[in-house]
Amino acid sequence: MSNRIHEQYDLEDELHEECGVFGMYDFDGGDVASTIYYGLFALQHRGQESCGIAVSETDGPKGRVSSFKGMGLVNEVFTPETLEGMKGDIGVGHVRYSTAGSSTRENAQPLVLNYVKGTLALAHNGNLINALQLRHELEYTGAIFQTTIDSEVIAYHIARERLNTKSVEDAVIRAMKKIQGAYSLIVMSPRKLIGARDPHGFKPLCIGKRDNSYIITSESCALETVDAEFVRDVLPGEVVTITPDGIFSDTSMCKPKEKEARCIFEYIYFARPDSHIDGVSVYHSRILAGKYLAMDSPVEADLVVGVPESGNAAALGYSLQSGIPYGTAFVKNGYVGRTFIKPKQSNRESSVRVKLNVLAEAVKGKRVIMIDDSIVRGTTSDRIVGMLKEAGATEVHVRVSSPPFLYPCYFGTDIPSREQLIAYNRSVDDIKKVIGADSLAYLEINRLGEMVEQLPHCTGCFTGKYPMDPPTIDIRGEYQK
Amino acid sequence: MSNRIHEQYDLEDELHEECGVFGMYDFDGGDVASTIYYGLFALQHRGQESCGIAVSETDGPKGRVSSFKGMGLVNEVFTPETLEGMKGDIGVGHVRYSTAGSSTRENAQPLVLNYVKGTLALAHNGNLINALQLRHELEYTGAIFQTTIDSEVIAYHIARERLNTKSVEDAVIRAMKKIQGAYSLIVMSPRKLIGARDPHGFKPLCIGKRDNSYIITSESCALETVDAEFVRDVLPGEVVTITPDGIFSDTSMCKPKEKEARCIFEYIYFARPDSHIDGVSVYHSRILAGKYLAMDSPVEADLVVGVPESGNAAALGYSLQSGIPYGTAFVKNGYVGRTFIKPKQSNRESSVRVKLNVLAEAVKGKRVIMIDDSIVRGTTSDRIVGMLKEAGATEVHVRVSSPPFLYPCYFGTDIPSREQLIAYNRSVDDIKKVIGADSLAYLEINRLGEMVEQLPHCTGCFTGKYPMDPPTIDIRGEYQK
Amino acid sequence: MSNRIHEQYDLEDELHEECGVFGMYDFDGGDVASTIYYGLFALQHRGQESCGIAVSETDGPKGRVSSFKGMGLVNEVFTPETLEGMKGDIGVGHVRYSTAGSSTRENAQPLVLNYVKGTLALAHNGNLINALQLRHELEYTGAIFQTTIDSEVIAYHIARERLNTKSVEDAVIRAMKKIQGAYSLIVMSPRKLIGARDPHGFKPLCIGKRDNSYIITSESCALETVDAEFVRDVLPGEVVTITPDGIFSDTSMCKPKEKEARCIFEYIYFARPDSHIDGVSVYHSRILAGKYLAMDSPVEADLVVGVPESGNAAALGYSLQSGIPYGTAFVKNGYVGRTFIKPKQSNRESSVRVKLNVLAEAVKGKRVIMIDDSIVRGTTSDRIVGMLKEAGATEVHVRVSSPPFLYPCYFGTDIPSREQLIAYNRSVDDIKKVIGADSLAYLEINRLGEMVEQLPHCTGCFTGKYPMDPPTIDIRGEYQK
Amino acid sequence: MSNRIHEQYDLEDELHEECGVFGMYDFDGGDVASTIYYGLFALQHRGQESCGIAVSETDGPKGRVSSFKGMGLVNEVFTPETLEGMKGDIGVGHVRYSTAGSSTRENAQPLVLNYVKGTLALAHNGNLINALQLRHELEYTGAIFQTTIDSEVIAYHIARERLNTKSVEDAVIRAMKKIQGAYSLIVMSPRKLIGARDPHGFKPLCIGKRDNSYIITSESCALETVDAEFVRDVLPGEVVTITPDGIFSDTSMCKPKEKEARCIFEYIYFARPDSHIDGVSVYHSRILAGKYLAMDSPVEADLVVGVPESGNAAALGYSLQSGIPYGTAFVKNGYVGRTFIKPKQSNRESSVRVKLNVLAEAVKGKRVIMIDDSIVRGTTSDRIVGMLKEAGATEVHVRVSSPPFLYPCYFGTDIPSREQLIAYNRSVDDIKKVIGADSLAYLEINRLGEMVEQLPHCTGCFTGKYPMDPPTIDIRGEYQK
Repeated sequence: MSNRIHEQYDLEDELHEECGVFGMYDFDGGDVASTIYYGLFALQHRGQESCGIAVSETDGPKGRVSSFKGMGLVNEVFTPETLEGMKGDIGVGHVRYSTAGSSTRENAQPLVLNYVKGTLALAHNGNLINALQLRHELEYTGAIFQTTIDSEVIAYHIARERLNTKSVEDAVIRAMKKIQGAYSLIVMSPRKLIGARDPHGFKPLCIGKRDNSYIITSESCALETVDAEFVRDVLPGEVVTITPDGIFSDTSMCKPKEKEARCIFEYIYFARPDSHIDGVSVYHSRILAGKYLAMDSPVEADLVVGVPESGNAAALGYSLQSGIPYGTAFVKNGYVGRTFIKPKQSNRESSVRVKLNVLAEAVKGKRVIMIDDSIVRGTTSDRIVGMLKEAGATEVHVRVSSPPFLYPCYFGTDIPSREQLIAYNRSVDDIKKVIGADSLAYLEINRLGEMVEQLPHCTGCFTGKYPMDPPTIDIRGEYQK
Repeated sequence: MSNRIHEQYDLEDELHEECGVFGMYDFDGGDVASTIYYGLFALQHRGQESCGIAVSETDGPKGRVSSFKGMGLVNEVFTPETLEGMKGDIGVGHVRYSTAGSSTRENAQPLVLNYVKGTLALAHNGNLINALQLRHELEYTGAIFQTTIDSEVIAYHIARERLNTKSVEDAVIRAMKKIQGAYSLIVMSPRKLIGARDPHGFKPLCIGKRDNSYIITSESCALETVDAEFVRDVLPGEVVTITPDGIFSDTSMCKPKEKEARCIFEYIYFARPDSHIDGVSVYHSRILAGKYLAMDSPVEADLVVGVPESGNAAALGYSLQSGIPYGTAFVKNGYVGRTFIKPKQSNRESSVRVKLNVLAEAVKGKRVIMIDDSIVRGTTSDRIVGMLKEAGATEVHVRVSSPPFLYPCYFGTDIPSREQLIAYNRSVDDIKKVIGADSLAYLEINRLGEMVEQLPHCTGCFTGKYPMDPPTIDIRGEYQK
Repeated sequence: MSNRIHEQYDLEDELHEECGVFGMYDFDGGDVASTIYYGLFALQHRGQESCGIAVSETDGPKGRVSSFKGMGLVNEVFTPETLEGMKGDIGVGHVRYSTAGSSTRENAQPLVLNYVKGTLALAHNGNLINALQLRHELEYTGAIFQTTIDSEVIAYHIARERLNTKSVEDAVIRAMKKIQGAYSLIVMSPRKLIGARDPHGFKPLCIGKRDNSYIITSESCALETVDAEFVRDVLPGEVVTITPDGIFSDTSMCKPKEKEARCIFEYIYFARPDSHIDGVSVYHSRILAGKYLAMDSPVEADLVVGVPESGNAAALGYSLQSGIPYGTAFVKNGYVGRTFIKPKQSNRESSVRVKLNVLAEAVKGKRVIMIDDSIVRGTTSDRIVGMLKEAGATEVHVRVSSPPFLYPCYFGTDIPSREQLIAYNRSVDDIKKVIGADSLAYLEINRLGEMVEQLPHCTGCFTGKYPMDPPTIDIRGEYQK
Repeated sequence: MSNRIHEQYDLEDELHEECGVFGMYDFDGGDVASTIYYGLFALQHRGQESCGIAVSETDGPKGRVSSFKGMGLVNEVFTPETLEGMKGDIGVGHVRYSTAGSSTRENAQPLVLNYVKGTLALAHNGNLINALQLRHELEYTGAIFQTTIDSEVIAYHIARERLNTKSVEDAVIRAMKKIQGAYSLIVMSPRKLIGARDPHGFKPLCIGKRDNSYIITSESCALETVDAEFVRDVLPGEVVTITPDGIFSDTSMCKPKEKEARCIFEYIYFARPDSHIDGVSVYHSRILAGKYLAMDSPVEADLVVGVPESGNAAALGYSLQSGIPYGTAFVKNGYVGRTFIKPKQSNRESSVRVKLNVLAEAVKGKRVIMIDDSIVRGTTSDRIVGMLKEAGATEVHVRVSSPPFLYPCYFGTDIPSREQLIAYNRSVDDIKKVIGADSLAYLEINRLGEMVEQLPHCTGCFTGKYPMDPPTIDIRGEYQK
C-alpha cells in the first residue's frame, strides 16, 4: 500500500485546482462529520489527492479533536466506522490537489495542532507567494516545520499573534497582514468557526445555513448537496466568525473593489457549473464564453461539440448564438480512478483513447466545431482532433473558451513551465497546425470581464500582469518537493 | 475487509446489466493481459461488482493458467504487479454485476477449471432459464458445485460433451443444445479461443482484429479503446473458433432470423453509445427514440434536457426533431465509487441530490422537457422532477425513451418484482401524478423496431411475451442467494 | 495485494506440516465460529499459508453456508466483523500449508459445495497417493475441477457415492474405499458433523466435548485452548458421525492394529508438545528421544541446548539422562511474519542470524551439545554451529532427535528432493564435517518405537519402506503447481 | 482499516517498554534503509505499535528526506518496494510502544522536520518529566504542536538552540540542559548522526561498526543481527557525533557515576537476553536473579519452570543454584499478532489460555517452582497458577525475579495506577493467597545491585525514591490522550 498517488485520473492536459474546504458548526449540538463528508464529496472536483476531516465537541474538553486524513477520494478514505467515530458539533474538512507541498499523507489537511490556547484546525485553499520567506523568518526564531504546506505557515502566524490578541479571530486578522497571496481559509477553534478570504478574493468562499447550523465552504454547490441555503459570499478580505452568540464580520482587511482579483479559471474550468461565485453563475459565464466565441470567431459548420465535461456549456452557448446544432461527439469513461494503470509507451492503447472515445456516428461526414475550455500543452487536443478526423469529421474547428496561457500562476493553479505551454512562442496559426485543426480561435481577453458581470479578476496567466508582485525567489523551490 | 459490495454507485432506480466479456488471442505470442485490462475497462459500465482475467501460454504446459479475480472495479482489482505477473498470449476477462449468484469473490469470473482435456476458462454474459434444472440433473449424476453462477453449469456440460466429441468447439455446440436462455460466452482452451452467442442473440458479441491478434468481446467500443478494428458481429447461434490455423464458424445452432430476440435494453440503456450492435449504432437508436417521442408526444416547452448520462442522446433527438433547444439541467457527481457511504434515512442529505444536482441557472423560469431512458420504481424520477421545480422550472414534461416495464426479465436484466414497478397497475396518468410531472409519455412499443432498423428483438419486459417459455420454477430461488 | 505468500517465516531448513482441522457442533444452537477461530489459532503451527471457516445453521435452509477464507494467519484473515457475521451452530475450520496444490486463495479450505443432497463443507489434512489417478478417472466421466487440492477429489467421491447410499456417512465410508493415502477429514453436512481418519492413521484426529457441544480436531491442544475436554482419539479407519441423536462410530474400514502407520514426525516435530496423540504425550516422546540420544551417543560436555523451539524438549531429556546441565543458547526472534522481507544475497544480514541469535554469555568457553529435531538440507545447521563457535563455544556436538532423512514422503510431509537431502549419499561422518560439528549422532531407528509406546508408525522417509505402495507416476506433477 | 491498535499481543499483565532506536551512517555512501529494517526487527520487542524509518543522502540536496511510518510491526509496515524507494546513506529508525502520546500514525517516529538549518529527523526512547511544562513555555512563545510526543518538544529546543550555536551537536547539548527525564536520542541532520543519552542513563544506547559504517542503537543485540561489531556504550550524559571526519564525544553533561540511574527493568524484562547494557549481560543478570531467589527463598520441589519467555533465564539460574531440575511447563502460542481477536467476557475461551497452555505431562504430580519476572496486577499469575494445579501440580511455589511494584514510573515504563497494583496495600502473604500459590517470594531489593555488577540504577517503582523529583502536575494529563 503506497501513500503516493501514481496516476492522475483525468485527461492529461488539464489544469488542476488545489483545494476545497467545508466547515460546519451545529448550534444544536448535532454531529457534523457526516454532512462534512457529503460536502467534501460535492467539492471532490477541486482536489482528488487527499482529504481529511477534523471535528470537535464544543462542550467537551478543549483540546479534544478527532481527525482522519488519507490519500485518495473522499469515498475511498472514509468508512462508515470512521465517520461514526468522529463525534463533534463543529468541524472542518478539506480535499486537496497539491500544487505546493508534495502529495503525501503528511501534507493532507486539515492541519490539527495544539497552541497556547488549546486546539486549532485549519483548512486552506490557495497559494501564498511569500510562504518561503515567512518560513525562513519563522525558522530564524526557532520554528520547526513538519509539513511542506502553506497552512503550517499560516498556523504559526495565528499562534504567534494569538499571544497578543484577545481572540482567535483577531489573531487571524493580524496573521493576514503578514501572509500574501491567495487563500480561502477555514479555522476551527474549540468554540468558533472562522472563515477568511484573502483581500484579492482569488479563491471563492461562501456561507450557508441549514436549520440551526452554519456552513462555510468553497462553492455553493456543496450547500445544495447537503440541502443548506446559500446565505452570501464571504467578501474578499473579510473574516467571518461564527459563534452561538452570532455571526461576526470583520472587513478591516478588505480592499477597494477594483483591487479584487478573482481567479477567472474558477469560472472557466475549476468550479462546478451549478455553483455561483460572488453572485455570478459559473454555468452562465461558460454559456456566455461560448456565445462570445460564436460572435468573435464564427465559422460555418454542421455541429458544435464540447470536450467533456467542462467544454459542454461553452459549446451550448456557441450553438445557441450561432444556430449550429449542438451535439455530443465523445464518450468519456467515468471509471478512471486513482489506481488506474496508465498505458505504457510500449502499449498499443493510448491514455487519451482509453478515457475518451469519439462517437463516430455523430460526427461522420460533418464539419465539427469543437469547444475546449483551455489548451495547456496541446498534447490532448492533438489526439482528440485526430480522433475526430479518423471518425470521419470532414473539418474540425477548435474554439477555446479562454485566452492562451502564456505566464505562470503564483496563486494556486498548477500551470506547467513556460517552455511546455503550447502558446509560448507560437502564433495561433502555428498552434492550429500543431494540433491539426482546420481553424482555431481563443476567447478574446476583453470578453473575460463580460463573462463575469465585470467582476474584477486576475488575468496574470494570460498577460503576465499580476495583482501583486510575484515572488523573486522561486516558490516552487526548496519546499515544493 | 469485506467481500461483499455494500453500495451501488449509481442512481438507485436504474436497471443493471450483468456482464461484459473480452477474450484475446495473439498469434505472435505477445502478452494479452494488459490489453484485456483496457478492454474490460471499456466494458466497466456492464458490471461493477467484480472482475477477473485468466491467461495462458499456448506454447506452455497445457494446464498452466494464471488468473486473478476480485471484488470491485477493474482499476481497483488489478495492480501493475498483478498484470505483469500474468503471462500468456491467450486470455479472457470478465466484468460482473450479479443478477444470478451472489456477489462474492467465489462467483467472480472467468471460471477456471481442469477437465479431461486440460484447462478451460469461461466468461459468460447472460442468464440461463434452465440452469436450476440442469444443476439438479447434474447433481443426480454426482456433480458438485462450488459457485452459484450459471457458468459452472455450462462448464459441466462442455466437459461432459467433450468426452464424446473430437474438439472443444464441438463440445460447446453440443452443450448449447442443452442450455437455454441468454448467453454470450467466451471459452479459452489451451490453444483455442471460442466465442458463442445464444440462438436468440439476446446479448451482443463481436469480433475484432489488431495486427496478428483476434479479439472477441461484448461491445465494439472495447475494440476502439484498444485500437483494434471491428471485424463483424458474432451471429445469434454462431460458434466462432479462433486458432492460428484460421477462424472457423459453426452456424448449426442458428435459428431463422425472425426467431432472434436481441435485448432491446442494450440499445436503450445498457450499451455504450459508441458501440454498434448487429450493425446498428446504439447512439443513433437513442437519437431516434428521442425523435419518435417528439413526433408521438409533442409538447410546447423552452428546453429539452436528458437525465445523465443515458438520457442525453434521446434528449438531443427530441430537440433536433422538435426544434426546442437542447440544454443541460443536471450536474452529476462522477466520484461516487463502490465504497461511497449512502446517506441514512436520518440524514438531511439525500442519495439522489448528492449524486445529481440541478443547474438552476439553466432551468429557472422555463418549461422543461426531461428525457429519461426508463422509469423502474419511479423513486428517482419523483425526486428529480421535484428538484427541477424547486430550481424554478415552471413546467416539467417527462418523456421516457422506452415503454413502461410491466413484466420480469428472465434473461439477465435485473428488474424488481412486479409490485415494485411503478407502471404495474397504474395508468400513465397515475404515474404522472406520482412523479409530479406536468405531462408524461413513454416511447410507443411499435417504435422499438424502427429504432433498431427492424432487427428482431425481445419485448418481454413490456409485453410479457417472451421468445421462449419462462421457467416454471422460480429461477431466483434456492441457488440465487 | 498479492494472493501468494512470498516468504516462509521460520528457519529455512524445517519440514512443513500441511494442515490442521477443527469442526464443532453445538447441540444448544450457539454460534461456533468464534470457538473454531480459537481452535484454529491453537493449530496454527500446522499451517500458516491460508485458513478458513465455514458454518451453517442446522435449523436454517439446507443450503445456507457462511464461509470465509483467506491467505495468511488466522489472526490476519479474520476480523471481529467477519466472525460475527458467521452465524451457525455447526461448522468446520482449516489451516493450511500446501504440499499438494498451489498456495492460492482458490485452494484454501474448507471446500464448500452444493451437491445432490444440499451443501457439504470439507476440511482435510493429508495427502492422497492416488489423487491424480482419481482425478483422471473422474474427468473421464465429465467432472470439472476448480482447485488443485485433494479435497475436491474426495468431495466428488462422496457426492457420487451419496447417490447410492442412504446417508452421507455411508457415502464417506464408500469414498474411503477409493481414496488411498493419508487423510484426517472433517465433513460438515447440513445437520451432521463427520470425522474420518484413514485406515493407517497417518494423521491425528480426536474428539472433544464442551457442555453440549462436540468437537473433532487434529490435536488435543486445540481442545484445551477452547476449554473442552478430550474424549478420545478417532481410530485409524474410523468414521465418527455426530448428530443430536448421538455419536455413531463406524469401524468397518479399520485395519488390524499392526497395519497402522502413524506419521512419526507428528511426535518428533509437527505436533504441539502439549498434545497427546493416540494416547502418547508428544512432549514425553520428545523427552525420551533426548534420553535415548544420551544413552546411545554420549559425549562429555558442559551444556546441553536445544535448537528452538522443537529441539528444547529433547535437550531437556538429554540433560536429565546425562546429568549435563541444560541451558539456553539461542534467542529466537518471534516477530517474523508472513510479510517479512528476507535478506538478499547482496545484504550483509543473513536470514538465519536475523531470526536466531546466540547467547554468547551462555556458551562462551563451553563444550556444547546442541539438539535439533532433524536435519534436512543441513544449511541451517551449518550456520548455527558456526554461530555457536563464533560465540566462543569450544566444542559443538550435534545430536538429532530423529534418524536421517533418505526418502521422500508421499503422505503429506514436504521433504525436498533426494539430491537436496544432506544425508543422501553421505556418511554421518561426512555430514559432521559439512556442518562443522565436533561430533554428530542421530536417533537410532529402533528407538522410534520406544518413543511412542510401540504404537505402529511409518518410517518411510528413513527406510524407503512405506505402508502402501507409493504412486508410480509423480504425484508432484501436473496438478501440484 | 483502522489506524489504532485494538489488541495487545502479549500476556495482559506485562509491562511495556516504549521504544527502540537504530541510526546508521555509511561513509561509503551505501543505502542504509535495509539494514535499519533488520535492526528495528531485532528491537521489535521494545515496541510493537508503530515504526518508521527516515533516510537522507548526504551528498544530495540538504532538505531531502525519505521517510515512511506506519502502525504495526516492522514486517507489516514495510514492503520491499517501500524499502527500495528509500535512498540514503544516513538514516534513523524507530519502533514504538506508547506510554506518552496516543497510539496514532501521527505520533509514530522518527519525527522529520525542517528548521533553520535544513532538515532534522529524531528518534527517541524515554519519557521527559517536564515535557508538559516545556510545551506550555514554548506555546507562550508562539509554538504549535502537531503531535503529542515528547520528541516534538525536544526538536523545538534543538531548533531554537541552533540559532545561537555553531553546530547541531551543540544545540543538542544545550537542549539537554532544558529537558529532564529519560531519553536515549538519535538525531539525524543532513550530514551528521548524533546519539545522546540522558545524564542518568535510564535507557540504553550503544555504538556499533560494520566496515565503514557506524551505528547507534538501543541494544547490542541489534548490532549482532546486522553483523556489526559492538564498539561501546554511549555514556550517561554523553553526546556522540558521527561524521566522516571522525566520531566526536561530548561528555559535558555527564554526571558523577553515582548519579546514574539505569532502568533496572531493562535487565529484568525489557531488553533481549542476548544484549549487553553498560557492560553487563542481560542474560547473566537474569541467571543471577534466579540464583539469588534460590539462595534467599529456597523451597523443596521437583521442578523449576519459567513463565515464558522472560522467566526462563531466572528459572535456569534457580535450578543451577538449587539443584532442582529445570523443566518446561508451558507452551506459548507465538502466533498472536496485532489483529488477534481477544476472547470476550462471554466466550468460554480465556485470553491467557489461548496464549499459554500448560504441559500437563511435565508437571503432573510434581511440586513446581514457577519463576516469573514480575507481577503487576496479578491477574495473569492467578490464571497460570490455577492452570498448573488443574494440570496436576501438587504444589506451586511462585518466585518473582524482581521486587514488588509499589510506585509509578515517570521515565517511560507503563505501570498501571497504584490501586491496580497487586502489591499495593497487600502483604506478600496476602498476594500469595490472591494468586493461589503455595508460597511466594520476591527478589530482595538489595540483590538488584549485585545482579548488575553494582551499576547505579533506578529503583523508583519499588521504593518511591526517584533519581529526580517527579513532576508535580500529572504528566499523563492533557497531552497524553
